[in-house]
Amino acid sequence: MADSIIDRLTQSFLKFPGIGPRQARRFVYYLLRTNHGNARELARQIEELRVGIRQCAECQRFFPASAQVNSTICNICNDNTADHGLLMVVEKDIDLENIRKSDTYAGRYFVLGGLAPILTEHPERSIRAQELENLIKHRLGGSSSKLREIIIALSVNPEGDYTVEVLKKLLAPLAEEHDIKITLLGRGLSTGTELEYSDADTLKNAIKNRS
Amino acid sequence: MADSIIDRLTQSFLKFPGIGPRQARRFVYYLLRTNHGNARELARQIEELRVGIRQCAECQRFFPASAQVNSTICNICNDNTADHGLLMVVEKDIDLENIRKSDTYAGRYFVLGGLAPILTEHPERSIRAQELENLIKHRLGGSSSKLREIIIALSVNPEGDYTVEVLKKLLAPLAEEHDIKITLLGRGLSTGTELEYSDADTLKNAIKNRS
Amino acid sequence: MADSIIDRLTQSFLKFPGIGPRQARRFVYYLLRTNHGNARELARQIEELRVGIRQCAECQRFFPASAQVNSTICNICNDNTADHGLLMVVEKDIDLENIRKSDTYAGRYFVLGGLAPILTEHPERSIRAQELENLIKHRLGGSSSKLREIIIALSVNPEGDYTVEVLKKLLAPLAEEHDIKITLLGRGLSTGTELEYSDADTLKNAIKNRS
Amino acid sequence: MADSIIDRLTQSFLKFPGIGPRQARRFVYYLLRTNHGNARELARQIEELRVGIRQCAECQRFFPASAQVNSTICNICNDNTADHGLLMVVEKDIDLENIRKSDTYAGRYFVLGGLAPILTEHPERSIRAQELENLIKHRLGGSSSKLREIIIALSVNPEGDYTVEVLKKLLAPLAEEHDIKITLLGRGLSTGTELEYSDADTLKNAIKNRS
Repeated sequence: MADSIIDRLTQSFLKFPGIGPRQARRFVYYLLRTNHGNARELARQIEELRVGIRQCAECQRFFPASAQVNSTICNICNDNTADHGLLMVVEKDIDLENIRKSDTYAGRYFVLGGLAPILTEHPERSIRAQELENLIKHRLGGSSSKLREIIIALSVNPEGDYTVEVLKKLLAPLAEEHDIKITLLGRGLSTGTELEYSDADTLKNAIKNRS
Repeated sequence: MADSIIDRLTQSFLKFPGIGPRQARRFVYYLLRTNHGNARELARQIEELRVGIRQCAECQRFFPASAQVNSTICNICNDNTADHGLLMVVEKDIDLENIRKSDTYAGRYFVLGGLAPILTEHPERSIRAQELENLIKHRLGGSSSKLREIIIALSVNPEGDYTVEVLKKLLAPLAEEHDIKITLLGRGLSTGTELEYSDADTLKNAIKNRS
Repeated sequence: MADSIIDRLTQSFLKFPGIGPRQARRFVYYLLRTNHGNARELARQIEELRVGIRQCAECQRFFPASAQVNSTICNICNDNTADHGLLMVVEKDIDLENIRKSDTYAGRYFVLGGLAPILTEHPERSIRAQELENLIKHRLGGSSSKLREIIIALSVNPEGDYTVEVLKKLLAPLAEEHDIKITLLGRGLSTGTELEYSDADTLKNAIKNRS
Repeated sequence: MADSIIDRLTQSFLKFPGIGPRQARRFVYYLLRTNHGNARELARQIEELRVGIRQCAECQRFFPASAQVNSTICNICNDNTADHGLLMVVEKDIDLENIRKSDTYAGRYFVLGGLAPILTEHPERSIRAQELENLIKHRLGGSSSKLREIIIALSVNPEGDYTVEVLKKLLAPLAEEHDIKITLLGRGLSTGTELEYSDADTLKNAIKNRS
């Protein structure tokens, strides 16, 4: 039974984020039990995904090609009502989606595609550093509304903090020359935080940023 | 963005067992980030699954068609070294796989395809009761080695216990007429059980079945 | 066995925060197994606790009486190197301890003793509102360094938010008259926060408080 | 603050089973907040525990002295309606209590006081092996109803299994000479067991002990 299609499909599901061998196998049996239409539809969608979704030449996020016929630029980057003076740098497409849903930011985005790994020689090569620089230069050249601020919006953990350092160093020359502010998301207490269990860093930031 | 392929594929993954909206979406982004080959291979495997896997006409389990060209009977049911006097009734294909891996049973199997729901009028219609009866009758007719024992091997929970009752009632006439024993898996302490936390039922069975 | 000392002591441990019947009983058996000295020492400490610990007349926290012979004021309130212009209002003694350990605040404290319950007629009666007002008035009268700011430092949950409202209303007249600022701890991302899982409120605060 | 009574009592609670530094400290603050009567009652109960509870000279369990004035034998060991032909060996007092509650066993008990540690030279010295042998010999001598069976009732984990071996070796000579059966609790599926997640050992036992 070593090379049956059940085993091979289990192997494929094992590559999904957060999925172990047992759950991978349950997925396979789910597909066997569900009706043929569902399974065929799933296969079709997976193939359509790679055709129907493009990566935006500006913000690098994935977007449905149908929405912008023949465009290499996504609908957010094309949106003229957005504040083009603000650029928020996030790690992943899902982070961007989550911030969009919170409805509290009306500027533009850039998706880094990952965090810079600590202890590598060229950490900037693991993220879309080149694309970010290109976008900023391009923006500085043509755009009618000047880029005023780059908001680095990364998760608060060692890799995120390190990526902040990498980005600051990378963008410093451009920022200085063109008078662009580089900011970080505010730190402090988040929803659900209990003072009894807060770490010293969070308390320090919460006290410093009190208002 | 309501009907983009990203959303539709997220909906499909939401039907997978144990998967919520957030993880479904992570699966989609994983497929966008992984290389085209992987995604296309996954789609191909899902289609191959429904072609390459058949359901055994006897034990009802799913098995790779390639293994038994032109056969409607799986390799386990075709295995003449197995003890055809024993028939173990399990709920799911995965249960069967797990028992096979434990290497402690050499008889034949039948996959019920579910448990009988409590509080329905015809609980036997939710499981493969008809197929089980047919298999037993067929076996009684032709097989060289007589069916001596049916082992009901279900999980220990209210639906499992109810299904045991449904099956016992269903099989009683056949069992009596042909002198077939109906047994249940032994109950008692399982690996990891701590006496301090055991329920009265488990303790009662463990004491009764001491040896 | 209904009223044995084992049962009665189990009942007493059941009142401890976060302790269920099983763990309460394990505590009793631990005390039976441990040597007599340990158990007697524990009993002695519990009695000593109520004698040796006083509640500070100013900040209301519990403090070791031995440290300040004949004093009704704790060592923090007596500390002249602290900034008497700052008063931080916390819910519990443990919150105060945690902030002290973070070593980022050098002002004074007040322990509310709880949060104001939502949907009660006089929520301020469930917290040490009167004692807080008294302390502020007393401070305004005599202290050499003027009270400039009251920092409300409560956990971020519905009861905490409601208590903030109760306190603001309570303190508004005094604050206005004496030009005292009332501030809240800064909100935003805390250590470990992932953008993908952040709620809209936290994101809103993090973006608003970026710097 | 290093040696305050708050810190010392926290240290004492830290020795309680399953309690970490934070919860130990919460216990102390609970005692400070609760009324004086509760705290004093707790201290009194802890002292009473060591006076009011004796260890049974036969089964070694802890029992309330008041119940049996001047007796060194507990009420279970004194119970003439119990079947004195059965002796169940358990690890802890709580295991004994749990089995009593299940109401499925009417013989006598012996509390080992622990499990035999693996990889020590004299594992039998960590358990009440001597007391168990003495009890059996004593029982063989005087009791009117003959000891027929010793049931070893331990948790199913490596230390439990090892203790079974230690006990079997220890008791073999006595058992053989006096025709006493040594049994183990039955193994198999316990309440809540799902076949999909069962280990090979549990499945093997469940199949072997089917009935």
